[in-house]
Amino acid sequence: MSTLPVVEVFGPTIQGEGELAGMPTAFVRFGGCDYRCSWCDSLFAVLPEDVRKAPRMTPAEVAAALAALAGNPEWVTLSGGNPALLELGELVSILHADGRRVTVETQGSVWRDWLAAVDLLTVSPKPPSSGMATPANEEETERFMQRAVAAAGRMVLKVVVFDEADYAWASAVRARYAGLPFHLSCGTDPPGPGTSHAEALDGVSERYRWLCERAARDPAMDGARILPQLHVLAWGHQRGH
Amino acid sequence: MSTLPVVEVFGPTIQGEGELAGMPTAFVRFGGCDYRCSWCDSLFAVLPEDVRKAPRMTPAEVAAALAALAGNPEWVTLSGGNPALLELGELVSILHADGRRVTVETQGSVWRDWLAAVDLLTVSPKPPSSGMATPANEEETERFMQRAVAAAGRMVLKVVVFDEADYAWASAVRARYAGLPFHLSCGTDPPGPGTSHAEALDGVSERYRWLCERAARDPAMDGARILPQLHVLAWGHQRGH
Repeated sequence: MSTLPVVEVFGPTIQGEGELAGMPTAFVRFGGCDYRCSWCDSLFAVLPEDVRKAPRMTPAEVAAALAALAGNPEWVTLSGGNPALLELGELVSILHADGRRVTVETQGSVWRDWLAAVDLLTVSPKPPSSGMATPANEEETERFMQRAVAAAGRMVLKVVVFDEADYAWASAVRARYAGLPFHLSCGTDPPGPGTSHAEALDGVSERYRWLCERAARDPAMDGARILPQLHVLAWGHQRGH
Repeated sequence: MSTLPVVEVFGPTIQGEGELAGMPTAFVRFGGCDYRCSWCDSLFAVLPEDVRKAPRMTPAEVAAALAALAGNPEWVTLSGGNPALLELGELVSILHADGRRVTVETQGSVWRDWLAAVDLLTVSPKPPSSGMATPANEEETERFMQRAVAAAGRMVLKVVVFDEADYAWASAVRARYAGLPFHLSCGTDPPGPGTSHAEALDGVSERYRWLCERAARDPAMDGARILPQLHVLAWGHQRGH
Protein backbone atom coordinates (compact mmCIF):
# COMPACT_ATOMS: atom_id res chain seq x y z
CA MET A 1 0.00 0.00 0.00
CA SER A 2 1.33 3.43 -0.87
CA THR A 3 2.31 5.65 2.02
CA LEU A 4 2.94 9.37 2.24
CA PRO A 5 5.75 11.31 3.98
CA VAL A 6 3.89 13.31 6.62
CA VAL A 7 6.05 15.92 8.33
CA GLU A 8 3.28 17.24 10.57
CA VAL A 9 -0.44 17.08 11.17
CA PHE A 10 -1.51 20.03 13.26
CA GLY A 11 -4.33 22.30 14.22
CA PRO A 12 -6.89 23.45 14.47
CA THR A 13 -5.34 26.83 13.88
CA ILE A 14 -6.18 29.59 11.47
CA GLN A 15 -5.10 29.84 7.86
CA GLY A 16 -2.41 32.50 7.82
CA GLU A 17 -2.48 33.46 4.15
CA GLY A 18 -4.50 33.79 1.01
CA GLU A 19 -8.14 33.20 0.17
CA LEU A 20 -9.02 31.54 3.48
CA ALA A 21 -6.87 33.84 5.63
CA GLY A 22 -8.23 33.97 9.17
CA MET A 23 -10.42 30.88 8.87
CA PRO A 24 -10.06 27.83 11.11
CA THR A 25 -8.31 24.92 9.44
CA ALA A 26 -6.31 21.81 10.18
CA PHE A 27 -3.03 21.30 8.33
CA VAL A 28 -1.18 18.36 6.88
CA ARG A 29 2.36 19.17 5.86
CA PHE A 30 3.88 16.69 3.43
CA GLY A 31 7.59 16.27 2.86
CA GLY A 32 9.44 16.84 -0.38
CA CYS A 33 9.89 19.80 -2.68
CA ASP A 34 11.24 20.44 -6.17
CA TYR A 35 12.14 24.04 -5.25
CA ARG A 36 14.70 25.52 -2.83
CA CYS A 37 13.39 29.00 -2.09
CA SER A 38 15.98 31.22 -0.45
CA TRP A 39 13.52 32.30 2.26
CA CYS A 40 11.78 28.95 2.76
CA ASP A 41 10.17 28.85 6.20
CA SER A 42 9.70 25.09 6.24
CA LEU A 43 12.97 23.57 5.10
CA PHE A 44 12.23 20.68 7.46
CA ALA A 45 9.63 19.65 4.88
CA VAL A 46 11.98 20.20 1.96
CA LEU A 47 15.47 18.87 2.64
CA PRO A 48 15.77 15.16 1.75
CA GLU A 49 17.67 14.34 4.96
CA ASP A 50 14.74 15.71 6.98
CA VAL A 51 12.01 14.31 4.77
CA ARG A 52 13.50 10.80 5.04
CA LYS A 53 12.87 10.96 8.80
CA ALA A 54 9.18 11.85 8.36
CA PRO A 55 6.70 9.15 9.36
CA ARG A 56 5.04 7.41 6.40
CA MET A 57 1.28 7.18 6.66
CA THR A 58 -1.49 5.80 4.52
CA PRO A 59 -4.25 8.19 3.40
CA ALA A 60 -6.61 6.56 5.93
CA GLU A 61 -4.06 7.14 8.71
CA VAL A 62 -3.73 10.80 7.74
CA ALA A 63 -7.51 11.21 7.81
CA ALA A 64 -7.63 9.49 11.23
CA ALA A 65 -4.91 11.80 12.58
CA LEU A 66 -6.93 14.79 11.40
CA ALA A 67 -10.12 13.44 12.95
CA ALA A 68 -8.27 13.02 16.26
CA LEU A 69 -7.34 16.70 16.55
CA ALA A 70 -9.21 18.69 19.20
CA GLY A 71 -12.01 20.52 17.40
CA ASN A 72 -12.68 19.57 13.86
CA PRO A 73 -12.73 22.48 11.44
CA GLU A 74 -14.35 21.84 8.11
CA TRP A 75 -11.29 22.99 6.16
CA VAL A 76 -8.17 20.87 5.82
CA THR A 77 -5.11 22.48 4.24
CA LEU A 78 -2.67 20.21 2.40
CA SER A 79 0.71 21.88 2.46
CA GLY A 80 4.40 21.09 2.06
CA GLY A 81 6.95 21.13 0.60
CA ASN A 82 5.08 20.74 -2.66
CA PRO A 83 2.13 18.41 -2.10
CA ALA A 84 1.66 18.11 -5.85
CA LEU A 85 4.71 15.82 -5.95
CA LEU A 86 2.50 13.20 -4.27
CA GLU A 87 -0.57 11.28 -5.28
CA LEU A 88 -3.16 12.59 -2.82
CA GLY A 89 -6.37 11.73 -4.67
CA GLU A 90 -7.27 8.94 -2.27
CA LEU A 91 -6.76 11.22 0.74
CA VAL A 92 -8.94 13.92 -0.80
CA SER A 93 -11.69 11.34 -1.41
CA ILE A 94 -11.55 10.11 2.17
CA LEU A 95 -11.64 13.65 3.54
CA HIS A 96 -14.60 14.52 1.34
CA ALA A 97 -16.40 11.41 2.55
CA ASP A 98 -15.67 12.63 6.09
CA GLY A 99 -17.44 15.90 5.28
CA ARG A 100 -14.24 17.98 5.18
CA ARG A 101 -13.37 20.63 2.63
CA VAL A 102 -9.86 20.46 1.21
CA THR A 103 -7.54 23.19 0.07
CA VAL A 104 -4.05 22.77 -1.31
CA GLU A 105 -1.21 25.14 -2.02
CA THR A 106 1.42 24.46 -4.64
CA GLN A 107 3.91 26.57 -6.56
CA GLY A 108 2.47 25.29 -9.81
CA SER A 109 5.38 23.27 -11.13
CA VAL A 110 3.78 19.81 -11.38
CA TRP A 111 0.18 19.20 -12.36
CA ARG A 112 -1.71 16.24 -10.91
CA ASP A 113 -5.26 15.31 -11.83
CA TRP A 114 -6.27 15.10 -8.16
CA LEU A 115 -5.72 18.86 -7.89
CA ALA A 116 -8.95 19.25 -9.87
CA ALA A 117 -10.89 17.57 -7.05
CA VAL A 118 -10.02 19.93 -4.20
CA ASP A 119 -12.35 22.66 -3.00
CA LEU A 120 -9.80 25.44 -3.35
CA LEU A 121 -6.50 25.37 -5.21
CA THR A 122 -3.96 28.08 -4.44
CA VAL A 123 -1.20 28.42 -7.01
CA SER A 124 1.74 30.33 -5.60
CA PRO A 125 4.45 30.87 -8.20
CA LYS A 126 7.73 31.95 -6.64
CA PRO A 127 9.06 35.47 -7.31
CA PRO A 128 12.65 36.56 -8.02
CA SER A 129 13.65 36.88 -4.34
CA SER A 130 13.15 33.13 -3.95
CA GLY A 131 15.85 32.38 -6.52
CA MET A 132 13.34 30.14 -8.28
CA ALA A 133 11.94 32.48 -10.95
CA THR A 134 14.07 30.95 -13.68
CA PRO A 135 12.88 30.86 -17.30
CA ALA A 136 12.55 27.06 -17.05
CA ASN A 137 10.38 27.30 -13.95
CA GLU A 138 8.28 30.05 -15.48
CA GLU A 139 7.62 27.84 -18.52
CA GLU A 140 6.59 25.05 -16.18
CA THR A 141 4.20 27.40 -14.38
CA GLU A 142 2.68 28.39 -17.71
CA ARG A 143 2.06 24.73 -18.62
CA PHE A 144 0.64 24.08 -15.15
CA MET A 145 -1.69 27.03 -15.41
CA GLN A 146 -3.01 25.95 -18.79
CA ARG A 147 -4.03 22.62 -17.30
CA ALA A 148 -5.27 24.14 -14.05
CA VAL A 149 -7.47 26.76 -15.71
CA ALA A 150 -9.03 24.02 -17.82
CA ALA A 151 -9.47 21.42 -15.08
CA ALA A 152 -9.54 22.97 -11.61
CA GLY A 153 -12.57 24.21 -9.70
CA ARG A 154 -12.16 27.23 -7.43
CA MET A 155 -8.63 28.53 -7.92
CA VAL A 156 -6.67 31.58 -6.80
CA LEU A 157 -3.20 32.95 -7.41
CA LYS A 158 -0.94 34.07 -4.58
CA VAL A 159 2.47 35.69 -4.92
CA VAL A 160 4.77 36.39 -2.00
CA VAL A 161 6.39 39.79 -2.25
CA PHE A 162 9.54 40.87 -0.45
CA ASP A 163 10.70 43.76 -2.59
CA GLU A 164 10.14 45.91 -5.65
CA ALA A 165 11.41 43.26 -8.07
CA ASP A 166 8.96 40.75 -6.64
CA TYR A 167 6.19 43.32 -6.92
CA ALA A 168 6.87 43.91 -10.60
CA TRP A 169 6.97 40.16 -11.18
CA ALA A 170 3.68 39.70 -9.30
CA SER A 171 2.07 42.41 -11.43
CA ALA A 172 3.05 40.55 -14.57
CA VAL A 173 1.64 37.29 -13.20
CA ARG A 174 -1.62 39.00 -12.32
CA ALA A 175 -1.92 40.56 -15.78
CA ARG A 176 -1.23 37.21 -17.45
CA TYR A 177 -4.00 35.38 -15.56
CA ALA A 178 -6.33 38.32 -15.18
CA GLY A 179 -9.49 36.33 -14.54
CA LEU A 180 -8.29 34.80 -11.28
CA PRO A 181 -8.62 36.15 -7.74
CA PHE A 182 -5.19 37.44 -6.81
CA HIS A 183 -3.37 37.70 -3.48
CA LEU A 184 -0.23 39.61 -2.65
CA SER A 185 1.22 37.95 0.40
CA CYS A 186 3.68 40.06 2.32
CA GLY A 187 6.94 38.15 2.77
CA THR A 188 8.40 37.62 6.22
CA ASP A 189 12.13 37.31 6.74
CA PRO A 190 13.12 33.99 8.28
CA PRO A 191 14.13 34.65 11.89
CA GLY A 192 17.78 34.81 12.85
CA PRO A 193 18.90 32.86 15.93
CA GLY A 194 18.31 35.82 18.27
CA THR A 195 15.25 37.41 16.62
CA SER A 196 12.70 38.42 19.26
CA HIS A 197 8.96 38.35 18.67
CA ALA A 198 8.95 42.17 18.88
CA GLU A 199 11.56 42.38 16.12
CA ALA A 200 9.61 39.93 13.99
CA LEU A 201 6.45 42.01 14.47
CA ASP A 202 8.25 45.17 13.56
CA GLY A 203 9.51 43.52 10.38
CA VAL A 204 6.00 42.34 9.48
CA SER A 205 4.55 45.80 10.08
CA GLU A 206 7.21 47.65 8.12
CA ARG A 207 7.06 45.54 4.98
CA TYR A 208 3.27 45.29 5.11
CA ARG A 209 2.99 49.08 5.31
CA TRP A 210 5.27 49.40 2.30
CA LEU A 211 3.33 46.82 0.32
CA CYS A 212 -0.06 48.37 1.15
CA GLU A 213 1.11 51.84 0.19
CA ARG A 214 2.62 50.48 -3.02
CA ALA A 215 -0.39 48.41 -4.05
CA ALA A 216 -3.32 50.54 -2.90
CA ARG A 217 -2.46 53.29 -5.40
CA ASP A 218 -1.60 50.96 -8.25
CA PRO A 219 -4.51 50.45 -10.66
CA ALA A 220 -2.85 47.18 -11.70
CA MET A 221 -3.49 45.81 -8.19
CA ASP A 222 -7.05 47.04 -7.80
CA GLY A 223 -9.26 44.20 -6.61
CA ALA A 224 -6.29 42.16 -5.34
CA ARG A 225 -6.05 41.29 -1.67
CA ILE A 226 -2.93 42.34 0.21
CA LEU A 227 -2.33 40.48 3.42
CA PRO A 228 0.45 39.86 5.94
CA GLN A 229 1.27 36.36 7.16
CA LEU A 230 -1.28 36.23 9.97
CA HIS A 231 0.29 33.20 11.65
CA VAL A 232 3.54 35.15 12.04
CA LEU A 233 1.62 38.06 13.56
CA ALA A 234 0.05 35.72 16.11
CA TRP A 235 2.79 33.20 16.83
CA GLY A 236 6.02 34.35 15.19
CA HIS A 237 7.81 31.45 13.54
CA GLN A 238 6.73 28.89 16.11
CA ARG A 239 6.03 25.48 14.54
CA GLY A 240 2.53 24.01 14.60
CA HIS A 241 0.68 27.15 13.44
CA MET B 1 -29.76 71.16 -1.44
CA SER B 2 -28.99 68.66 1.29
CA THR B 3 -25.39 68.43 2.40
CA LEU B 4 -23.53 65.79 4.35
CA PRO B 5 -21.07 66.17 7.26
CA VAL B 6 -17.85 64.75 5.81
CA VAL B 7 -15.12 64.29 8.40
CA GLU B 8 -12.58 62.87 5.96
CA VAL B 9 -12.19 61.56 2.43
CA PHE B 10 -9.03 59.53 2.18
CA GLY B 11 -7.20 56.82 0.37
CA PRO B 12 -6.53 54.86 -1.55
CA THR B 13 -5.51 52.61 1.27
CA ILE B 14 -6.46 49.06 2.10
CA GLN B 15 -9.55 47.94 3.93
CA GLY B 16 -8.34 46.96 7.39
CA GLU B 17 -11.22 44.73 8.51
CA GLY B 18 -13.91 42.33 7.48
CA GLU B 19 -15.00 40.87 4.19
CA LEU B 20 -12.79 43.09 2.03
CA ALA B 21 -9.80 43.05 4.39
CA GLY B 22 -6.60 43.72 2.47
CA MET B 23 -8.31 45.13 -0.61
CA PRO B 24 -7.64 48.61 -1.98
CA THR B 25 -10.40 51.08 -1.18
CA ALA B 26 -11.09 54.76 -0.75
CA PHE B 27 -12.90 55.91 2.38
CA VAL B 28 -15.47 58.54 3.19
CA ARG B 29 -15.96 59.06 6.90
CA PHE B 30 -19.21 60.79 7.82
CA GLY B 31 -19.82 62.55 11.10
CA GLY B 32 -22.45 61.63 13.65
CA CYS B 33 -23.18 58.56 15.71
CA ASP B 34 -25.98 57.29 17.89
CA TYR B 35 -23.54 55.16 19.93
CA ARG B 36 -20.67 56.05 22.27
CA CYS B 37 -18.48 52.95 22.30
CA SER B 38 -15.97 52.95 25.14
CA TRP B 39 -13.11 52.04 22.79
CA CYS B 40 -14.19 54.15 19.81
CA ASP B 41 -11.18 54.88 17.58
CA SER B 42 -12.83 57.70 15.69
CA LEU B 43 -14.46 59.95 18.28
CA PHE B 44 -13.64 62.87 15.99
CA ALA B 45 -16.48 61.54 13.80
CA VAL B 46 -18.79 60.99 16.76
CA LEU B 47 -18.71 63.88 19.20
CA PRO B 48 -21.14 66.66 18.22
CA GLU B 49 -18.61 69.42 18.93
CA ASP B 50 -16.24 67.82 16.40
CA VAL B 51 -18.89 66.85 13.87
CA ARG B 52 -20.18 70.43 13.77
CA LYS B 53 -16.76 71.48 12.47
CA ALA B 54 -16.83 68.97 9.62
CA PRO B 55 -17.19 70.43 6.12
CA ARG B 56 -20.63 69.91 4.58
CA MET B 57 -20.58 68.52 1.08
CA THR B 58 -23.18 67.59 -1.49
CA PRO B 59 -23.18 64.00 -2.79
CA ALA B 60 -21.69 65.26 -6.07
CA GLU B 61 -18.89 66.99 -4.15
CA VAL B 62 -18.12 63.82 -2.23
CA ALA B 63 -17.94 61.85 -5.47
CA ALA B 64 -15.66 64.50 -6.97
CA ALA B 65 -13.37 64.38 -3.92
CA LEU B 66 -13.14 60.61 -4.32
CA ALA B 67 -12.41 60.88 -8.03
CA ALA B 68 -9.59 63.34 -7.25
CA LEU B 69 -7.67 60.89 -5.03
CA ALA B 70 -4.45 59.51 -6.50
CA GLY B 71 -5.28 56.09 -7.88
CA ASN B 72 -8.90 55.19 -8.12
CA PRO B 73 -9.77 51.86 -6.53
CA GLU B 74 -13.09 50.36 -7.51
CA TRP B 75 -14.25 50.05 -3.90
CA VAL B 76 -15.44 53.00 -1.86
CA THR B 77 -16.08 52.44 1.85
CA LEU B 78 -18.68 54.63 3.54
CA SER B 79 -17.81 54.81 7.20
CA GLY B 80 -18.48 56.90 10.28
CA GLY B 81 -19.71 57.47 12.87
CA ASN B 82 -22.83 55.68 11.76
CA PRO B 83 -23.42 56.46 8.08
CA ALA B 84 -26.93 55.03 8.36
CA LEU B 85 -27.96 58.19 10.21
CA LEU B 86 -27.68 59.97 6.85
CA GLU B 87 -29.51 59.77 3.57
CA LEU B 88 -26.77 58.51 1.24
CA GLY B 89 -28.86 57.04 -1.58
CA GLU B 90 -27.97 59.82 -3.99
CA LEU B 91 -24.26 59.41 -3.28
CA VAL B 92 -24.49 55.65 -3.86
CA SER B 93 -26.23 56.27 -7.19
CA ILE B 94 -23.57 58.73 -8.32
CA LEU B 95 -20.77 56.37 -7.30
CA HIS B 96 -22.42 53.48 -9.15
CA ALA B 97 -22.76 55.66 -12.21
CA ASP B 98 -19.01 56.41 -11.86
CA GLY B 99 -18.31 52.65 -11.96
CA ARG B 100 -17.43 52.38 -8.28
CA ARG B 101 -18.49 49.65 -5.91
CA VAL B 102 -19.77 50.78 -2.54
CA THR B 103 -19.54 49.16 0.84
CA VAL B 104 -20.90 50.50 4.09
CA GLU B 105 -20.42 49.58 7.71
CA THR B 106 -23.02 50.28 10.37
CA GLN B 107 -23.76 48.94 13.83
CA GLY B 108 -27.26 48.05 12.73
CA SER B 109 -29.28 50.47 14.82
CA VAL B 110 -31.09 52.44 12.09
CA TRP B 111 -32.32 50.95 8.84
CA ARG B 112 -32.38 53.04 5.68
CA ASP B 113 -33.65 51.87 2.34
CA TRP B 114 -30.48 53.04 0.57
CA LEU B 115 -28.56 50.35 2.48
CA ALA B 116 -30.23 47.82 0.17
CA ALA B 117 -28.48 49.40 -2.83
CA VAL B 118 -24.87 49.01 -1.74
CA ASP B 119 -22.62 46.23 -3.02
CA LEU B 120 -21.64 44.99 0.43
CA LEU B 121 -23.28 45.79 3.74
CA THR B 122 -21.34 45.04 6.93
CA VAL B 123 -23.43 45.00 10.07
CA SER B 124 -21.25 45.31 13.13
CA PRO B 125 -23.30 45.09 16.34
CA LYS B 126 -21.34 46.28 19.35
CA PRO B 127 -20.37 43.77 22.06
CA PRO B 128 -20.46 44.22 25.85
CA SER B 129 -16.99 45.83 26.09
CA SER B 130 -18.33 48.79 24.10
CA GLY B 131 -20.89 49.57 26.78
CA MET B 132 -23.53 49.58 24.02
CA ALA B 133 -24.90 46.03 24.26
CA THR B 134 -27.99 47.14 26.15
CA PRO B 135 -31.29 45.27 25.83
CA ALA B 136 -32.76 48.28 24.00
CA ASN B 137 -29.92 48.34 21.47
CA GLU B 138 -30.12 44.59 21.00
CA GLU B 139 -33.83 44.89 20.20
CA GLU B 140 -33.00 47.60 17.67
CA THR B 141 -30.39 45.35 16.08
CA GLU B 142 -32.95 42.58 15.82
CA ARG B 143 -35.41 44.87 14.02
CA PHE B 144 -32.62 46.13 11.76
CA MET B 145 -31.57 42.60 10.89
CA GLN B 146 -35.11 41.57 9.99
CA ARG B 147 -35.29 44.37 7.46
CA ALA B 148 -31.72 43.88 6.26
CA VAL B 149 -32.09 40.15 5.67
CA ALA B 150 -35.25 40.82 3.66
CA ALA B 151 -33.93 43.78 1.65
CA ALA B 152 -30.14 43.87 1.45
CA GLY B 153 -27.92 42.28 -1.16
CA ARG B 154 -24.54 40.94 -0.11
CA MET B 155 -24.36 41.24 3.66
CA VAL B 156 -21.94 40.10 6.37
CA LEU B 157 -21.79 40.31 10.13
CA LYS B 158 -18.74 41.52 11.99
CA VAL B 159 -18.26 41.59 15.74
CA VAL B 160 -15.28 43.19 17.44
CA VAL B 161 -13.96 41.07 20.29
CA PHE B 162 -11.80 42.32 23.13
CA ASP B 163 -12.40 39.65 25.77
CA GLU B 164 -14.20 36.48 26.76
CA ALA B 165 -17.54 38.24 27.39
CA ASP B 166 -17.42 39.74 23.90
CA TYR B 167 -16.58 36.33 22.48
CA ALA B 168 -19.61 34.71 24.10
CA TRP B 169 -21.79 37.53 22.84
CA ALA B 170 -20.36 37.18 19.32
CA SER B 171 -21.11 33.45 19.39
CA ALA B 172 -24.74 34.16 20.22
CA VAL B 173 -24.99 36.69 17.38
CA ARG B 174 -23.50 34.21 14.96
CA ALA B 175 -25.89 31.48 16.04
CA ARG B 176 -28.88 33.82 15.70
CA TYR B 177 -28.05 34.80 12.10
CA ALA B 178 -26.44 31.57 11.09
CA GLY B 179 -26.81 31.98 7.35
CA LEU B 180 -24.55 35.03 7.11
CA PRO B 181 -20.79 35.18 6.60
CA PHE B 182 -19.30 36.03 9.97
CA HIS B 183 -16.19 37.93 11.00
CA LEU B 184 -14.53 38.11 14.37
CA SER B 185 -12.51 41.30 14.36
CA CYS B 186 -9.81 41.43 16.98
CA GLY B 187 -10.18 44.59 19.06
CA THR B 188 -7.31 47.02 19.42
CA ASP B 189 -6.91 49.13 22.54
CA PRO B 190 -6.97 52.84 21.82
CA PRO B 191 -3.42 54.18 22.20
CA GLY B 192 -2.44 56.04 25.32
CA PRO B 193 -0.51 59.31 24.91
CA GLY B 194 2.87 57.57 25.02
CA THR B 195 2.04 54.29 23.26
CA SER B 196 4.81 53.40 20.81
CA HIS B 197 4.18 51.55 17.55
CA ALA B 198 6.07 48.56 19.00
CA GLU B 199 3.74 48.47 22.01
CA ALA B 200 0.70 48.75 19.75
CA LEU B 201 2.00 45.84 17.63
CA ASP B 202 2.63 43.74 20.69
CA GLY B 203 -0.94 44.38 21.82
CA VAL B 204 -2.34 43.43 18.42
CA SER B 205 -0.28 40.24 18.35
CA GLU B 206 -1.17 39.14 21.87
CA ARG B 207 -4.92 39.56 21.58
CA TYR B 208 -4.98 38.12 18.06
CA ARG B 209 -3.12 35.03 19.25
CA TRP B 210 -5.63 34.61 22.07
CA LEU B 211 -8.59 35.05 19.74
CA CYS B 212 -7.23 32.63 17.14
CA GLU B 213 -6.53 29.98 19.74
CA ARG B 214 -9.97 30.48 21.24
CA ALA B 215 -11.89 30.41 17.97
CA ALA B 216 -9.95 27.85 15.94
CA ARG B 217 -10.93 25.03 18.32
CA ASP B 218 -14.50 26.16 18.79
CA PRO B 219 -16.96 24.35 16.51
CA ALA B 220 -19.31 27.33 16.94
CA MET B 221 -16.79 29.51 15.07
CA ASP B 222 -15.97 27.08 12.27
CA GLY B 223 -16.19 28.86 8.95
CA ALA B 224 -15.91 32.31 10.52
CA ARG B 225 -13.01 34.57 9.62
CA ILE B 226 -10.81 35.83 12.42
CA LEU B 227 -8.73 38.86 11.54
CA PRO B 228 -6.71 41.57 13.24
CA GLN B 229 -7.16 45.23 12.34
CA LEU B 230 -4.76 45.32 9.41
CA HIS B 231 -4.57 49.11 9.28
CA VAL B 232 -3.29 49.13 12.87
CA LEU B 233 -0.67 46.51 11.95
CA ALA B 234 0.54 48.71 9.10
CA TRP B 235 0.12 52.24 10.42
CA GLY B 236 -0.76 52.11 14.10
CA HIS B 237 -3.50 54.59 14.93
CA GLN B 238 -2.36 57.18 12.43
CA ARG B 239 -5.30 58.97 10.78
CA GLY B 240 -5.96 58.64 7.07
CA HIS B 241 -5.64 54.85 6.87
